[in-house]
Amino acid sequence: MITLEKVRQRAESDAKTYGYHLNPDPKFLMDLLEGLKMNEERYGYPSCPCRLASGKIEFDRDITCPCDYRDPDVEEHGACYCALYVRKDLFEGKTAIQPVPERRPQEKQARAYRIVAETAAEKPSGTTAVVPKEPLEIKLRLWYCKQCGYVCYREEPPYVCPICKAKREMFAEIKHA
Amino acid sequence: MITLEKVRQRAESDAKTYGYHLNPDPKFLMDLLEGLKMNEERYGYPSCPCRLASGKIEFDRDITCPCDYRDPDVEEHGACYCALYVRKDLFEGKTAIQPVPERRPQEKQARAYRIVAETAAEKPSGTTAVVPKEPLEIKLRLWYCKQCGYVCYREEPPYVCPICKAKREMFAEIKHA
Amino acid sequence: MITLEKVRQRAESDAKTYGYHLNPDPKFLMDLLEGLKMNEERYGYPSCPCRLASGKIEFDRDITCPCDYRDPDVEEHGACYCALYVRKDLFEGKTAIQPVPERRPQEKQARAYRIVAETAAEKPSGTTAVVPKEPLEIKLRLWYCKQCGYVCYREEPPYVCPICKAKREMFAEIKHA
Repeated sequence: MITLEKVRQRAESDAKTYGYHLNPDPKFLMDLLEGLKMNEERYGYPSCPCRLASGKIEFDRDITCPCDYRDPDVEEHGACYCALYVRKDLFEGKTAIQPVPERRPQEKQARAYRIVAETAAEKPSGTTAVVPKEPLEIKLRLWYCKQCGYVCYREEPPYVCPICKAKREMFAEIKHA
Repeated sequence: MITLEKVRQRAESDAKTYGYHLNPDPKFLMDLLEGLKMNEERYGYPSCPCRLASGKIEFDRDITCPCDYRDPDVEEHGACYCALYVRKDLFEGKTAIQPVPERRPQEKQARAYRIVAETAAEKPSGTTAVVPKEPLEIKLRLWYCKQCGYVCYREEPPYVCPICKAKREMFAEIKHA
Repeated sequence: MITLEKVRQRAESDAKTYGYHLNPDPKFLMDLLEGLKMNEERYGYPSCPCRLASGKIEFDRDITCPCDYRDPDVEEHGACYCALYVRKDLFEGKTAIQPVPERRPQEKQARAYRIVAETAAEKPSGTTAVVPKEPLEIKLRLWYCKQCGYVCYREEPPYVCPICKAKREMFAEIKHA
């Protein structure tokens, strides 16, 4: 069972690992955690409460919390897109929390909309599907962190290595493992 | 050298990462940590102090602390099989610590007994070994977490992704890396 | 942008994960963090402030902070080579911080010197390079932790598994993934 306590604990623990803080506004924070809980119940994974999920993990992977964009967003703007994770100075109120522009590529956003539309169209309704089906292929590859050797299997490497915190530029593809 | 302090620190650090606590009873906790230390000295890895180890890491991997079963056990019962790791409400005494049923498959328990018996039989004693040798094959496979891309090489995926804390169901096999 | 605050936070978070502390002397600590920041700006990765970097990540990987040698050094000597990371008893002043002998193999140190010299020789200066070019091949391999299944791609496995903290001896090569 997914409890709010568990969702909060997971976010707190992850924040600590990266040196972030959770949003200091208790009501705002609770709403985000509720959103994460709802998404996890609905989809099986905690997709971002501030974005449209396709319901297919392959396409929502980059917006599953903590999303791929959190680390560069906290670095550049002091907060992630949702403002669930914030930098210390924003947590302490020294810097105001500002709206964070969407870093997720337009192409991926559009893809989510298409899939949601397609899924709706697939439901038996007696009418013909109006959304043309297009292959939505995802090419997963093996990446490794040149600094610590961490290996992951993704479309693109993470912005920050979860082990040694090296930047994305330190990742390279494993060609012949 | 393996010190009790080191064993405790490792357990505490791991508990924090997953949002757990160590057993609140200092004497009980110390006994468990002593058991872990003894096992690590004997086998080279800290196998569960409450279970029979075979002495071969391939077969004890799932019961090496933190064992594979800890995460679902803490979730369902509030404590791991040994009660080394407990949930916050049990740590705070709000919920009583209850015996936790053994989640390790019977087949794996039986295997450990067979190996221990075989090993004993192999010792030169002038008598013939009484335990029939059977191949104990283990098939390791490459798994990845569909949420964060974490890669591991195991018989089965972990119950919880050590990086993003996704559930076992989010793991899939890497077929053609 | 690399800030001192970020460098410090990363080191602190990593220290916590392994149960270490940062050097208790604020001035000394600040100098080390400044050194890490400078190296990260210069090379793109935070190579050890107390060692000669080649400027090529393949050759500096083992001395990129936290360096490969930190864990055995903290275990044996209570501090890493730089004394950036120290054990609890040294942090609390119960044990004096002593110079830590260089654990990095001579062969790797020599390699760094050669690369620095070669790089200097390659610069157009009208003179012939005095350092003979020799192939500096590095063979990366896939390793896995027999205890938790963690996979990494490195020359040699880490001294301590970043996930379950098993020792280097628990790593084996993945031959046919």
